[in-house]
Amino acid sequence: MKLFVLNQSAFMATQLGLRSIRRVSTFCTSAKWEGGVSMVQGASRGIGLEFVKQLLEKNEKGHVIATCRNPDGATGLLDLKNKFADRLNILPLDLTIESTIEASAKSIKERYGSLNLLINASGILSLPDVMQPETTLSKVQKSSLLLAYEVNAVGPILVIKHMWPLLKDGGGSGTGRDVAVVANLSARVGSIGDNRLGGWHSYRSSKSALNQLTKTVSVEFARKKDPIICLLLHPGTVDTDLSRPFQRNVPEGKLFTKEFSVQKLLSIINNAKGHDNGKFYAWDGQEIPW
Amino acid sequence: MKLFVLNQSAFMATQLGLRSIRRVSTFCTSAKWEGGVSMVQGASRGIGLEFVKQLLEKNEKGHVIATCRNPDGATGLLDLKNKFADRLNILPLDLTIESTIEASAKSIKERYGSLNLLINASGILSLPDVMQPETTLSKVQKSSLLLAYEVNAVGPILVIKHMWPLLKDGGGSGTGRDVAVVANLSARVGSIGDNRLGGWHSYRSSKSALNQLTKTVSVEFARKKDPIICLLLHPGTVDTDLSRPFQRNVPEGKLFTKEFSVQKLLSIINNAKGHDNGKFYAWDGQEIPW
Repeated sequence: MKLFVLNQSAFMATQLGLRSIRRVSTFCTSAKWEGGVSMVQGASRGIGLEFVKQLLEKNEKGHVIATCRNPDGATGLLDLKNKFADRLNILPLDLTIESTIEASAKSIKERYGSLNLLINASGILSLPDVMQPETTLSKVQKSSLLLAYEVNAVGPILVIKHMWPLLKDGGGSGTGRDVAVVANLSARVGSIGDNRLGGWHSYRSSKSALNQLTKTVSVEFARKKDPIICLLLHPGTVDTDLSRPFQRNVPEGKLFTKEFSVQKLLSIINNAKGHDNGKFYAWDGQEIPW
Repeated sequence: MKLFVLNQSAFMATQLGLRSIRRVSTFCTSAKWEGGVSMVQGASRGIGLEFVKQLLEKNEKGHVIATCRNPDGATGLLDLKNKFADRLNILPLDLTIESTIEASAKSIKERYGSLNLLINASGILSLPDVMQPETTLSKVQKSSLLLAYEVNAVGPILVIKHMWPLLKDGGGSGTGRDVAVVANLSARVGSIGDNRLGGWHSYRSSKSALNQLTKTVSVEFARKKDPIICLLLHPGTVDTDLSRPFQRNVPEGKLFTKEFSVQKLLSIINNAKGHDNGKFYAWDGQEIPW
């Protein structure tokens, strides 16, 4: 906690032009951020953008850090910034460049000192002329397997790695929860036990790997008694750019709006307890087999 | 089957100096290889080398193709070649270079025409000065995650992709089984449900991904009614170069010789039936949760 107090106070001291406060700051009572501090990684559109919106709208005191590769082009975020200027902070972060993750962590540490929620919302399923979900083994390409793994599994874990000290300092303070939450957007097709259709090799295996990495991290957090839990969340099939090319086989009533899905997922997050650590939940709260 | 007959006959024709047989070969009855044709990928040492040895010793008519990155340096294989010259074929194959996988498939197709068993035995856990099993999230490196994924998950799937037509042609003929078998060496630490210790992020997630990819492939084989099944096998902790730096915490009696482990795994492979397709078994035949 000392670290937080130092940083938070140092930030305030800088804001106030008071350098000398730093020396005595460890004696202050920690004043965490009322309403909590949330980070949404992959926030420029789709589910990530909707998380930012609902976090700002539903919690009038909560602060949100939204990260994306190119903030200047993130029109949805810039619209929200106009409305919630004092509670929304947009930072550049490219999952595939670890130095940008480190820079975000440094920036968040300096400005907020801690985090109470990290949502990894980015994900890749297809990219025109680069990768398509595979319909058969004979179409599996090494480049697609590696790209999906890098974006869907490696990136989120590197974000957790660098935000870990901030989440540890934040815990649940200011949020009504006992713990900080890491929520990784997974997908039911990442379930091995539930795989009855085959196909989508690159996406499936990257999400299975994300599940395993998240579970592995959750075990360490529990062993160290860090006030952080990890969740894996399946949002359902949501009407976003990611799913749009593949919506034609979705049964009627099973294609969700992002508003609906994020509302459901936020309910899971807000009510999460210690025993949820390392679990894989669908939007309706049902546990999904590995 | 026509493809096999053509190739097999073409091979025999070349051996016999008879070019004209090729034209009429589609009318011949297919003469599969008595004893079957097995391929072991990652055969230069450890469990892979032991598979080659036992396949040759226990089945006096079986043919074995052993692949490794550098055949000239594979002394264990060269020793076996001296003893089983007519039934062992050593080919160069580097999992990380897809063209070498394709070249092996072409070579096997020309010489044997079909395959009845493919064992992916290669694997990476550590590499001096490059990667070490992680003891904590803070030591997780992108480079290690990607390397483990490329070798342990991507490579084996690319091998199956290129050997698929040969396995389809081979089925179980000459082996006593009804089906061809793809056996991928996985590991219990790749189980997400069984992950209670944490750590080893790169290795764990690469094996979880291999499990998902293998399951995905098994679904397609079943749907297409191809005479091929896929197995995921956990060999136990076996006394090999891979496990040697990490053997100190293995309970007494739980460190197996490679002879013992491979004997157990070959028994599972030889007795495999259609309903085993896509299953994850330990050396003792127990199913492991995903």
